Amino acid sequence: MNTPSTTANAPLPLTEAQIEQDILQLGKQAKAAALQLALLSSDDKNKILLAMAAGIRAASDDILAANALDIAAGEAKGLSSAMLDRLRLDTNRLEGIASGVEQVANLPDPTNEIMDEWDRPNGIHIQQLRVPIGVIGIIYESRPNVTSDAAALCFKSGNATILRGGSEAIHSNKALAKALQAGGEQAGLPKAAIQLIENTDRASVKYMAQMDQYLDLIIPRGGKGLIETVVSLARMPVIKHYDGICHLYVDAAADLDMAVKITVDAKTQKPSVCNALETLLVDESVAPIFLPLVEKALKAKGVELRADEASQTYLAAGTATATEEDWQTEYLELILAVKTVANIDEAIDHINTYSSKHSDCIITQDEAQVQRFMTEIDAACLFHNVSTRFSDGEEFGFGAEIGISTDKLHARGPMGLKELTSYQYRITGNGQTKS
Amino acid sequence: MNTPSTTANAPLPLTEAQIEQDILQLGKQAKAAALQLALLSSDDKNKILLAMAAGIRAASDDILAANALDIAAGEAKGLSSAMLDRLRLDTNRLEGIASGVEQVANLPDPTNEIMDEWDRPNGIHIQQLRVPIGVIGIIYESRPNVTSDAAALCFKSGNATILRGGSEAIHSNKALAKALQAGGEQAGLPKAAIQLIENTDRASVKYMAQMDQYLDLIIPRGGKGLIETVVSLARMPVIKHYDGICHLYVDAAADLDMAVKITVDAKTQKPSVCNALETLLVDESVAPIFLPLVEKALKAKGVELRADEASQTYLAAGTATATEEDWQTEYLELILAVKTVANIDEAIDHINTYSSKHSDCIITQDEAQVQRFMTEIDAACLFHNVSTRFSDGEEFGFGAEIGISTDKLHARGPMGLKELTSYQYRITGNGQTKS
Repeated sequence: MNTPSTTANAPLPLTEAQIEQDILQLGKQAKAAALQLALLSSDDKNKILLAMAAGIRAASDDILAANALDIAAGEAKGLSSAMLDRLRLDTNRLEGIASGVEQVANLPDPTNEIMDEWDRPNGIHIQQLRVPIGVIGIIYESRPNVTSDAAALCFKSGNATILRGGSEAIHSNKALAKALQAGGEQAGLPKAAIQLIENTDRASVKYMAQMDQYLDLIIPRGGKGLIETVVSLARMPVIKHYDGICHLYVDAAADLDMAVKITVDAKTQKPSVCNALETLLVDESVAPIFLPLVEKALKAKGVELRADEASQTYLAAGTATATEEDWQTEYLELILAVKTVANIDEAIDHINTYSSKHSDCIITQDEAQVQRFMTEIDAACLFHNVSTRFSDGEEFGFGAEIGISTDKLHARGPMGLKELTSYQYRITGNGQTKS
Repeated sequence: MNTPSTTANAPLPLTEAQIEQDILQLGKQAKAAALQLALLSSDDKNKILLAMAAGIRAASDDILAANALDIAAGEAKGLSSAMLDRLRLDTNRLEGIASGVEQVANLPDPTNEIMDEWDRPNGIHIQQLRVPIGVIGIIYESRPNVTSDAAALCFKSGNATILRGGSEAIHSNKALAKALQAGGEQAGLPKAAIQLIENTDRASVKYMAQMDQYLDLIIPRGGKGLIETVVSLARMPVIKHYDGICHLYVDAAADLDMAVKITVDAKTQKPSVCNALETLLVDESVAPIFLPLVEKALKAKGVELRADEASQTYLAAGTATATEEDWQTEYLELILAVKTVANIDEAIDHINTYSSKHSDCIITQDEAQVQRFMTEIDAACLFHNVSTRFSDGEEFGFGAEIGISTDKLHARGPMGLKELTSYQYRITGNGQTKS
């Protein structure tokens, strides 16, 4: 039987009830694993991480073969070349994934830190201790490296992980998860500490999002549609990243050479990322000098400008007119919206209206203006005389980054290992009662 | 026209679309107010709080008259005497409400604290600053004092509040909110910093829960049904309090006199609250001596016991048998479930199975057992030789409490003013770029 009837042997699609049962089973197992993870020492965890990296290297042939299946399916489906590139693994990329896991072993363990402690007048002593969150669900799209990055960071901070990747990368994700588990288990990784949902039906997202008895947090990573879905379904906390509509305001007291240099860097050094610049605001007192300068530097990098009427006066004839939509757009390409403002009040007002509260910047030599900008704008990261491209966990010195949160609760801005922890109060006494 | 036709003049019920519009309008106003609140100094805020307290005293006749309407409606509706008692205001209670607001003025302002700051090798300086969350929605049931407590705490931490109380207290809530606003505005309270949703239709909860463009956090306070509704609808973070199924484990190495004293306190000092004891676990080596001792002390306080078979051996004949349901029940009355366990492993296992992760306690003189109990149990508060009744913001020294969170993200356990804040990164440099 070398040519089995694929129709007869193809697995039947699972019913919704079966998907729900499977997800609940993973959740229950993860909760039990989380209790075991909380007991591992930092040394134990680091040994397991090194073994997980070795597991990836040992399984590299299998992982690359699995990835080839995903690439073939993606090509057959007509995925864009950018999508295919995100999906593709090769020996170099796989080595990067393995050494990424090893780097997590070198980071300090955030758990068991005494965050605070104090005595009360009645003699009880209260300690606030950093502990793992418990079980974290990661829902992501095509990049298979998220499988190992997220699993390693969650594991180092003592959390069990349930991974749910997209259908495009399912073979790669399965092979990677298997390699991490097999490698880790040799060094004592509890079974079910890292689990992958193999079902890529949308129903699996729904049942994950409802499983708040087992899942303490969901982190969706991907496009806005995916995040919207998770936000509307989830019963547990969700930490997410929506847009990065970042602004740069060139104040009347700006060093204009610095302003040009930072504008060019923030817009062009890597335009496809969330901390890249999207809107330039220029104080009207410096617009006549600054705008032609910055236009020249940006055009040399191939940037298209879309400007309001006041700015157009100082820019090349034929510069496109910015519309209301431009102020609301995260281009993620070499396009920059430009607006001339009367003063810092108008700049702050524009930013508080259109900013996605990710990262905004002021260029000025006037400390009083810095103070106003930083106090009056509601964003995760506010920059003074620094490119918004530094809004990043690595650049902050966190060693690794699970993402950048545009939320305001629990974690805001770049998230490192500490943001994957909770805390617990431990109270000791010698018989104190309220009576 | 002294006797208008009530039918003709009664307001028509609002359509869902009108309710949604009204809530969105409140949200938009609150967001604008939140930006203003972030700029108030601690002195400004404290003056406004004192003026809000004065506003309550000045309007006491109106508030008591409004409360009388709620009480009359409640009696007509047949509310229980316990419900009516929670609803009722009198001169003393109203003075308590006003002085509660004044006490919040005396608490330290949590905002603008530098939580952390560091330099990076490239010369940029990063500061993590504590800032308000923004706009907080409070959804609550019958107690009108929540109106002023929650508004005062959210305001002190720099947040705008949207309050949505239950229909039973609507007249009292309106009068209280009006008094807070009128008093506060005389001292500079931004309009829309404290807003009450006057519509008590369930649709108003739904539209609040969906309004994540304006509302940063919802705190539901009330019964499990209310909290469930908010959790399933909300698109923004929810901080909540489910059950308080608190355990006390009497270890083999316990001081048994202390164990009796703490058990009695934790069960009987105020049985109706979330940090009261619900399940007693006794090590089998001390059960023969301890159970008769604690039984005598508990019976003197009128406590009914429900025990497993092993414990029944040492208790009075006829002691009720505990069922599976007892381990899962938050009695909130003078009933205690009792179980004899073989050792600390069985105690920990029972607690991790049935605890609501609120507050659990070990009585022992053996430090190694304390260490195991505290490391292996996943609860917000773990007590050693102290009554679980100390699981409380006041007892922790927070000065005031917005509630006790049984969640693990952002805030866990007793929540004070600090838990009503977020943070912001402020990054300064001198022209750093990534290029």
